Amino acid sequence: MSNALSLPVLEPDVVEPCCPPLTERPLTAEESERTAVMFKALSDPVRLRLFSLVASHPGGEACVCDISDVGVSGPTVSFHLKKLKQAGLLASERRGTWVYYRVEPSVLAAMGALLTSPVRA
Amino acid sequence: MSNALSLPVLEPDVVEPCCPPLTERPLTAEESERTAVMFKALSDPVRLRLFSLVASHPGGEACVCDISDVGVSGPTVSFHLKKLKQAGLLASERRGTWVYYRVEPSVLAAMGALLTSPVRA
Repeated sequence: MSNALSLPVLEPDVVEPCCPPLTERPLTAEESERTAVMFKALSDPVRLRLFSLVASHPGGEACVCDISDVGVSGPTVSFHLKKLKQAGLLASERRGTWVYYRVEPSVLAAMGALLTSPVRA
Repeated sequence: MSNALSLPVLEPDVVEPCCPPLTERPLTAEESERTAVMFKALSDPVRLRLFSLVASHPGGEACVCDISDVGVSGPTVSFHLKKLKQAGLLASERRGTWVYYRVEPSVLAAMGALLTSPVRA
């Protein structure tokens, strides 16, 4: 059984980006379920602001210890950062006391591409 | 008083896009309130799918009469299209019996730009 410990831990909550630009073809039901999760993560004003704080932080990462002046408590900040991680928008790493969050650039780029219209002939 | 009738009707519900890329600087509280509304409009799977149907429809516009196979009733389709309009993502025009919806390309482009990382030095 000890071999099993070396297997990577799956994170079923983390969402993978998908799909062509929204102007190219209609999304399937499955694609829209998957993609809506990412938009939902950015649909709360506090969470969106926290995401921009992490995304624009020097070094490209931030912990709860770096975040103040958002008008919500530390535990609430942690809660929202976890939600962003579950939606696949942030990755995290524990170092000592703190968990550091950084933006997943590929996910952000995929979301940006979804909203970008290809040039039409 | 009759002169007042020729004044344009303001649409206080319609949201204007704003703000630099999320990776550039933290959003202010006001900017995040404003921007979260647009992400919220795309955070429902049915609404996101309807948006992609309108966005990718030949001619760039669609009415409820063009939309089927999304698993919800006509009135529900109308409800979601109105929500997308209130969030500033769709514009509409009535022609005869039907209201035609089309994507606001500038709003879509602004949302795409928000999620696009500038190249870092």
